Amino acid sequence: MAVTTITTTPQALAEGPSACGVGAATPIPRDEAERRAALLKAVADPARLQLLSIVRESPSGEACVCDMADAVGLTQPTVSHHLKILVDAGLLTRERRGTWAWFTLVPERMAEAASFLG
Amino acid sequence: MAVTTITTTPQALAEGPSACGVGAATPIPRDEAERRAALLKAVADPARLQLLSIVRESPSGEACVCDMADAVGLTQPTVSHHLKILVDAGLLTRERRGTWAWFTLVPERMAEAASFLG
Repeated sequence: MAVTTITTTPQALAEGPSACGVGAATPIPRDEAERRAALLKAVADPARLQLLSIVRESPSGEACVCDMADAVGLTQPTVSHHLKILVDAGLLTRERRGTWAWFTLVPERMAEAASFLG
Repeated sequence: MAVTTITTTPQALAEGPSACGVGAATPIPRDEAERRAALLKAVADPARLQLLSIVRESPSGEACVCDMADAVGLTQPTVSHHLKILVDAGLLTRERRGTWAWFTLVPERMAEAASFLG
């Protein structure tokens, strides 16, 4: 008489109830998680948080790269590098006026980043 | 990506107004910026954002590590690594029950992280 042996496959483990039998809620999709993480990574840096705070606190609502380097105690190339990351992430806009570049906050984009943590 | 940080010397700071003469607002202090960046780095990762979304959406307000591994399609050791980072950052609390560890969101800490972007 033949005896049928049924082995639990990885598929069966993945399809069935979990070890503790409760099951987890569905996470946000991976591509959406990657998009959110990229934006949060742009702000998750001490120098960039300082630069954003300068622009936010400026009475005119904008700041010049020349002033920001002094204010955070970094070289201008380093500050420009960080500002480019913030512009590429959509958190700042950049406008050239004569010799210098000026930066303005994009509050909607900051609010979007904050909403990922809400 | 490594960024070379060169601190402006007191002499350079003492030279007076910047090239465009407007002056920047005072940034948040560097140690505060580092504290904020550390918390934001803990969430700025696709897998960790997915794990946080699972815990947040769970009807019971908590999730078991055993269920989360299946839900995000990662191995349990990898998920445990990410969960440890979130617990160390104060964003989740961990409780062991029998074989498994259960995780609960710390909404106040999430709100604190969001406030850095507000």
